[in-house]
Amino acid sequence: MLPKVSQRISQDPSAMDELLELSNNEQVISFAAGYPAQELFPKEQLEHAFVHRSQNSAPDLYQYASVDGYAPLRQKIAHSILQTGISDVDESNLFLTQGAQQGISLLADLFLDVGDGVVVEGPSYIGALQAFESRKPTFYEMQMKNDGPDLAQLEEIVSQHPVKLVYTIPTFQNPTGVCMSAKKRQRIVELAQKYNFLIIEDDPYRELRYRGKSLPSIKSFDQTGNVVMLGSFSKILSPALRVGWMVADQSLLSLVNGLRSATDFQPSNVVLQMIDQYLQENDLQEHIEKICDVYSKRNEAMQTALGKYLPQSCSFSKPDGGFFIWVTLPQNLSAKKLLQNNSPVTFIESSQLYETSHQINQMRLNFTGVTEGQINEGCRLLADSIKKASLALTA
Amino acid sequence: MLPKVSQRISQDPSAMDELLELSNNEQVISFAAGYPAQELFPKEQLEHAFVHRSQNSAPDLYQYASVDGYAPLRQKIAHSILQTGISDVDESNLFLTQGAQQGISLLADLFLDVGDGVVVEGPSYIGALQAFESRKPTFYEMQMKNDGPDLAQLEEIVSQHPVKLVYTIPTFQNPTGVCMSAKKRQRIVELAQKYNFLIIEDDPYRELRYRGKSLPSIKSFDQTGNVVMLGSFSKILSPALRVGWMVADQSLLSLVNGLRSATDFQPSNVVLQMIDQYLQENDLQEHIEKICDVYSKRNEAMQTALGKYLPQSCSFSKPDGGFFIWVTLPQNLSAKKLLQNNSPVTFIESSQLYETSHQINQMRLNFTGVTEGQINEGCRLLADSIKKASLALTA
Repeated sequence: MLPKVSQRISQDPSAMDELLELSNNEQVISFAAGYPAQELFPKEQLEHAFVHRSQNSAPDLYQYASVDGYAPLRQKIAHSILQTGISDVDESNLFLTQGAQQGISLLADLFLDVGDGVVVEGPSYIGALQAFESRKPTFYEMQMKNDGPDLAQLEEIVSQHPVKLVYTIPTFQNPTGVCMSAKKRQRIVELAQKYNFLIIEDDPYRELRYRGKSLPSIKSFDQTGNVVMLGSFSKILSPALRVGWMVADQSLLSLVNGLRSATDFQPSNVVLQMIDQYLQENDLQEHIEKICDVYSKRNEAMQTALGKYLPQSCSFSKPDGGFFIWVTLPQNLSAKKLLQNNSPVTFIESSQLYETSHQINQMRLNFTGVTEGQINEGCRLLADSIKKASLALTA
Repeated sequence: MLPKVSQRISQDPSAMDELLELSNNEQVISFAAGYPAQELFPKEQLEHAFVHRSQNSAPDLYQYASVDGYAPLRQKIAHSILQTGISDVDESNLFLTQGAQQGISLLADLFLDVGDGVVVEGPSYIGALQAFESRKPTFYEMQMKNDGPDLAQLEEIVSQHPVKLVYTIPTFQNPTGVCMSAKKRQRIVELAQKYNFLIIEDDPYRELRYRGKSLPSIKSFDQTGNVVMLGSFSKILSPALRVGWMVADQSLLSLVNGLRSATDFQPSNVVLQMIDQYLQENDLQEHIEKICDVYSKRNEAMQTALGKYLPQSCSFSKPDGGFFIWVTLPQNLSAKKLLQNNSPVTFIESSQLYETSHQINQMRLNFTGVTEGQINEGCRLLADSIKKASLALTA
């Protein structure tokens, strides 16, 4: 017999795993995953970067390296982050992670004991919810509005309950596509300072803006170290590299460093140096513009198709960037049931994305990993099955 | 003000970090780190493997992939593990980790609540101790003998205290170099079955044997799923790849899978495919023999030099493989003080490697990352400083 697993750990199958399985079902059109378009990966450039760096480096390229990651790459990322409005950031404020997911997980592990308070957006990113869930905290939900989370509700929560972490995706939120207003970005920092919580600003979609002007990061309003910003190469370069970053005060990073060395010791120096060489040889901004051109059209195509096919009883978000559109169905229609009922299209149903309210009648559609043809056809099929299910519901 | 970090987390600087810093001090001869010899990394072969695989793969090489890692690589590892005496292992029993360190950390996270029982060898690997420490368990120590840990002591512990995990490095143990006897490998499995604990068999040095015959793995005696075996490419190929593996029953791996997806989502598919291609194009066993030739000579050189220079009051282990020799100083001589007193040679002092007894008069010396010349010179200088310190102690 085996010992019991921790009381923190759920033995249910992982929702993220189910998500991956759904995305790999090739029989249907998949709007489920948060996959970038793989035809846009800069394959040849990455190959060249790797070989060039390997051939021109001492053998210690393949040796153990540092826990926080290759310093010249941290410098380059720090430099690019100045554009988000942060005035004083250098490589000592940068910590490279195994994707942004590891950043969320390390912060959860660093701060949370069982029962500690965490506020998340309702709905939110399932990977973050799972990272928090495995620490078994007390969850609070702040509702998403068109300009970001409801901060009056947040203040109500944090003034009444001890809360350590507030997790937000301010730019083209996963799953709603909502962008937090500049005013709210400033205000949430004031609340963090007043109520002594840490804001985790998860910002992997920042560069993927298809219209409008960039907003300053939440971190740019932070003078007291109450904000940690996370970013990633997954959506703008390649997710198989598994490289993200954390921007924070040095004192916090030294704690993260200790925890990470016990978690997986350090990142892959080979991969970090490949990216560093790629950034030396290529204009990443140019590559991002190329991606944005394609994604912008797919976003338009999905908004057009949804407008054309969806029944009047549904509504959907109209994001200016990112990966996702959020569809709201008639109130009693369960997106999960729709999905389980041989749906010709896969998507992420809402109940698992709301940590406490488990609202059932919404769904996340991804438009970056599918062609415009698939988008049109998928939205048509999806709308048909929604209409059928609505009729069955009212019959 | 920031929220308080978890009560599980120590705010002291990481011992592993200090270790890395010591190893990077180029003013002195470093016997401190557990580094492989970097001149032996198969650089060109890895370059070729990466480019070949990238050029001959669909773009989804750079896409998100599976949480447990590239299946053909898991197959190859499963096949090689048959040689350790395990009769029924295939890719479904294999889970690829970010180095063996992540395997330890995931198991600690999966099983341990604050206060739960963990038995470790005294002394043990500092990275494992830190992974357990961050879960704040109750530690018990089993003393190392010449043929492995004291299993009578282990039975005394587990019969009196609830223990979930027993962590052992059976082959060329870090830090002592001791190899657990076949009899004890069988016996510890019987104890696990009787007292319902999980054995973590951490076996990264198995292939690095310089004399004598291989012993069956602990896992090979396991019929009930009470043993998880960990391995790694770090010591036999390159640590910068950050790829290790876990061998376990499917039911346990499905829990590990859920936890890992919330931790860092998945391994780097690019790196896994590079290794898979390397293994197709090269004979890893041949490469390991080449490494063993070099390390065997360094092991001999260090044993010879220690025999020649160390005073009679000291003793040292004579390992048949692995990375380390364990030196015992006169009883009251503190290895830590020796190190702090401008030692011309760095090493790992013992007190931090004993989780509960904190014995002070021992040290771990690495012989794989230094040349034979450095070994002779380093041992001479080390012996001199030991003699001086002994004199000062008795004066």
